[in-house]
Amino acid sequence: MKKLLSVSLAGVLSLGISMSANAVSQEDAIEYRQAVMEVIAWNVGQMGAMVRGKIRFDAQAFAKRAGNVAFLSLLSLEGFIPGSYEGETDAKPAIEINWDHFNAKMAQFEEESAKLAEVAKTAKTRREVGLQFMKMAKTCKGCHRRYKRR
Amino acid sequence: MKKLLSVSLAGVLSLGISMSANAVSQEDAIEYRQAVMEVIAWNVGQMGAMVRGKIRFDAQAFAKRAGNVAFLSLLSLEGFIPGSYEGETDAKPAIEINWDHFNAKMAQFEEESAKLAEVAKTAKTRREVGLQFMKMAKTCKGCHRRYKRR
Repeated sequence: MKKLLSVSLAGVLSLGISMSANAVSQEDAIEYRQAVMEVIAWNVGQMGAMVRGKIRFDAQAFAKRAGNVAFLSLLSLEGFIPGSYEGETDAKPAIEINWDHFNAKMAQFEEESAKLAEVAKTAKTRREVGLQFMKMAKTCKGCHRRYKRR
Repeated sequence: MKKLLSVSLAGVLSLGISMSANAVSQEDAIEYRQAVMEVIAWNVGQMGAMVRGKIRFDAQAFAKRAGNVAFLSLLSLEGFIPGSYEGETDAKPAIEINWDHFNAKMAQFEEESAKLAEVAKTAKTRREVGLQFMKMAKTCKGCHRRYKRR
């Protein structure tokens, strides 16, 4: 099995997947966390359009997106590695300096996202999800204002 | 409440989040699916490093990553919208032409990812997850070979 794995993993390497887990580069970490944020933004954007009435409120679709964000909210933190706040990133060095505060902000986002997913499970109208959606979205903004460039 | 929502949502808009759900652009769809794939690749890469013995096998971390990939495997499909196979994308127009086949390939990835997450829940060594990891990784490669440029 050892041989099978080593041969087949050469194949996996050709997928273009970065296998450099043993030495995560700052560039990889930046790209990773940006990708997580992008996937979050897509889902938040579509929920926001429903909350604003720009598109029809679909309770099932909203609940799925709320669940996505709750799950994704747990993923980005590991991409904020030491020394990864210069170069191709909008994340400020203040994150590293105020790490505990940044962590607390991220925890707020996780918490409000989880609450939104919970509320969305039984909501039938956009009015039922609106306030919790706003609470969740404010945790994004509150953190970006302090820790994101632009 | 309506006013509260409309005022606060102006704030949300300033997050830089795309709110164009009512008219998803091909560019947004491309960026979204690429971001999902990037987050998947990060997790697969770290699992691969454990399977290969490049980093220490951590059963809990592996199970978490396997769960991440199983969840993420469900997200990219909505980004493959009609007409989004030219420009800044490695996805081939063959996806649109052979949509049912592409869908079946994606379903295989979802299935093997779910199996890996299940196996990983109780696995204590890298040998226990190796074969299912390879099966999952092959579904990536099998689809990329036919539907991804480069």
